[in-house]
Amino acid sequence: MSDRFLRACRREPVGTTPVWFMRQAGRYMPEYRAIREKYSLLEICRHPELAAEVTLQPIRALGVDAAILFADILLPAIPLGVGLEFAKGEGPVLLNPIRNLDDVKNLRPVNPESDLGYVMEAIRLLRGTLSGVPLIGFCGAPFTVASYLIEGGSSREFLKTKTMMYSAPEVWRALMDKLSGVLRDYLVAQIRAGAQAVQIFDSWVGALSPQDYENFVLPYSQMVLQAAQKENVPVIHFGTNTSTLLPLMKRAGGDVIGLDWRIPLDDGWKILGDNVAVQGNLDPAVLFAPRSEIKKRVGDILQRADGRSGHIFNLGHGILQNTPVENVKAVVDMVHEFSFSNDGRAAECIETRDVA
Amino acid sequence: MSDRFLRACRREPVGTTPVWFMRQAGRYMPEYRAIREKYSLLEICRHPELAAEVTLQPIRALGVDAAILFADILLPAIPLGVGLEFAKGEGPVLLNPIRNLDDVKNLRPVNPESDLGYVMEAIRLLRGTLSGVPLIGFCGAPFTVASYLIEGGSSREFLKTKTMMYSAPEVWRALMDKLSGVLRDYLVAQIRAGAQAVQIFDSWVGALSPQDYENFVLPYSQMVLQAAQKENVPVIHFGTNTSTLLPLMKRAGGDVIGLDWRIPLDDGWKILGDNVAVQGNLDPAVLFAPRSEIKKRVGDILQRADGRSGHIFNLGHGILQNTPVENVKAVVDMVHEFSFSNDGRAAECIETRDVA
Repeated sequence: MSDRFLRACRREPVGTTPVWFMRQAGRYMPEYRAIREKYSLLEICRHPELAAEVTLQPIRALGVDAAILFADILLPAIPLGVGLEFAKGEGPVLLNPIRNLDDVKNLRPVNPESDLGYVMEAIRLLRGTLSGVPLIGFCGAPFTVASYLIEGGSSREFLKTKTMMYSAPEVWRALMDKLSGVLRDYLVAQIRAGAQAVQIFDSWVGALSPQDYENFVLPYSQMVLQAAQKENVPVIHFGTNTSTLLPLMKRAGGDVIGLDWRIPLDDGWKILGDNVAVQGNLDPAVLFAPRSEIKKRVGDILQRADGRSGHIFNLGHGILQNTPVENVKAVVDMVHEFSFSNDGRAAECIETRDVA
Repeated sequence: MSDRFLRACRREPVGTTPVWFMRQAGRYMPEYRAIREKYSLLEICRHPELAAEVTLQPIRALGVDAAILFADILLPAIPLGVGLEFAKGEGPVLLNPIRNLDDVKNLRPVNPESDLGYVMEAIRLLRGTLSGVPLIGFCGAPFTVASYLIEGGSSREFLKTKTMMYSAPEVWRALMDKLSGVLRDYLVAQIRAGAQAVQIFDSWVGALSPQDYENFVLPYSQMVLQAAQKENVPVIHFGTNTSTLLPLMKRAGGDVIGLDWRIPLDDGWKILGDNVAVQGNLDPAVLFAPRSEIKKRVGDILQRADGRSGHIFNLGHGILQNTPVENVKAVVDMVHEFSFSNDGRAAECIETRDVA
């Protein structure tokens, strides 16, 4: 049971489809909120025993097939020196956003083991605690991290980011060079500390045209992805809104490509080809629906996967705040029950009748 | 010259590709800001002579091939009785958002001529003033308008909207029935008042999976689109983030389908098929780039259109605030010069060399 996540990443046959959730540790869980009453998000991240505890909460509560280290994609911004804060209810704020080449040059060098050692320590702690559940490490992709550093926080239009690309490509490339080196080293350090798989989150890359992705993003994501793949752990390449970027994301790298709900899983997999695994793709909003509706949609995704090796069940993006925990747990059970039989197709037919 | 926009909508040959911009009247123009110093957005909309004046500003300043009535997609919310306000810098706020079936039943009946007569009056005024430039009327699509009514304003996740779809489909369908009737009548009234083409804006529909679009949106958009098409004016069906929804949007209706920058124009057109026109698809952020970069990207789109009948040049979404007016004007000139020759291919080759 314990290796089904890693096996699916490698497109090896599994009796049961593995399932985990992006942001499976978070505010929707009472256990997490109890800890957040005492500690800020950054305090949890920077104390390995707290980060490890929070990482374990969904493992105990949900029965998912993988743990993902509790951390934030913007942690590397702290040693880079851009001034990371989390404003209450407002998301991340970067106090010294990147505007020009001097700002890029002033970014401090980052040594993952000394500057982000608390992350590696949390990984080591977790590897000593988790029995049989693989641990996923992660980092933000260069584009997504760059967008926060340039915009100074979350964005809708990514106008400052795109304007830097289009009007000051030398600044953009200097920043992406710097970030991809830092993120590569950070991810490799996580693997060497014990992460058994890694995911790179390019959450906002779907704001770009395929041409801009290819020109301004692909080479930098590729550098991070390929370095991680050389460490011989499965690498998941995730984004949202990426329907037209999928072939390029595959070219950039990854053993597993994330799909969101905007593309039917079978259509997305067809575009990507059979030589890569896929992860996804339930709309996180579906977790607020009645159980019968959730079951129908979970079944639909599993039917589209059609029992092929190399599907990891997940949402198309992270779990939303206020999601009912019992619905998350129910999805884990549905996925595990649905794919219980080794004869995938038969199990699916039975389930379909049950669901309809 | 004056009829090239309408001819392109009907996929008739044109010597020059027509160009207009979504949100071509707005805050980026000093003439508009001068009027906004004295009047609120809603005051401008509700005074036909002001709405007409603002509609004409980009015609004078830019030389675009179509005028689009200055209005807001949420104007019908006023007679519906949900309490529309525009909070300073925050976008629209609906004071009485729709939560349940009673809220839907309490929506007031809307008579476009009496309740939104100022829109029709602005159209009549404009038709008397515009010489040779066709006038586009518009409305929001049922999904996009519903999302504002349910969320109470702008949204990122559309969680309340999706939760209504999934958990209370009878409320969703009652709301969509109501809205599609109101929007249909409003759009038909605009056409009968003199609008020579219409666009329905489904700006946020790209948040949905194709399955949800087909089930919860398509029939209602279809009702509005088909009613407009029966009036024998070209109908433009617009959305963003719609790469995987395009075949369904085509099925819903429209003589012209909008494409955003996330899909290359030729790829999008191929998915849609030759029997429909396309509009798009420059990223609005490109208008902040240096002129040489803008020219390259405008040229790329026109090359992808490849001189085929039925391309209307536009952005993939509305003009952003602070866009340099001179760059907008430059795009109009680039499009007109690029496609000046009747022998489209020859003109493109010359341009390509010039651009490279």
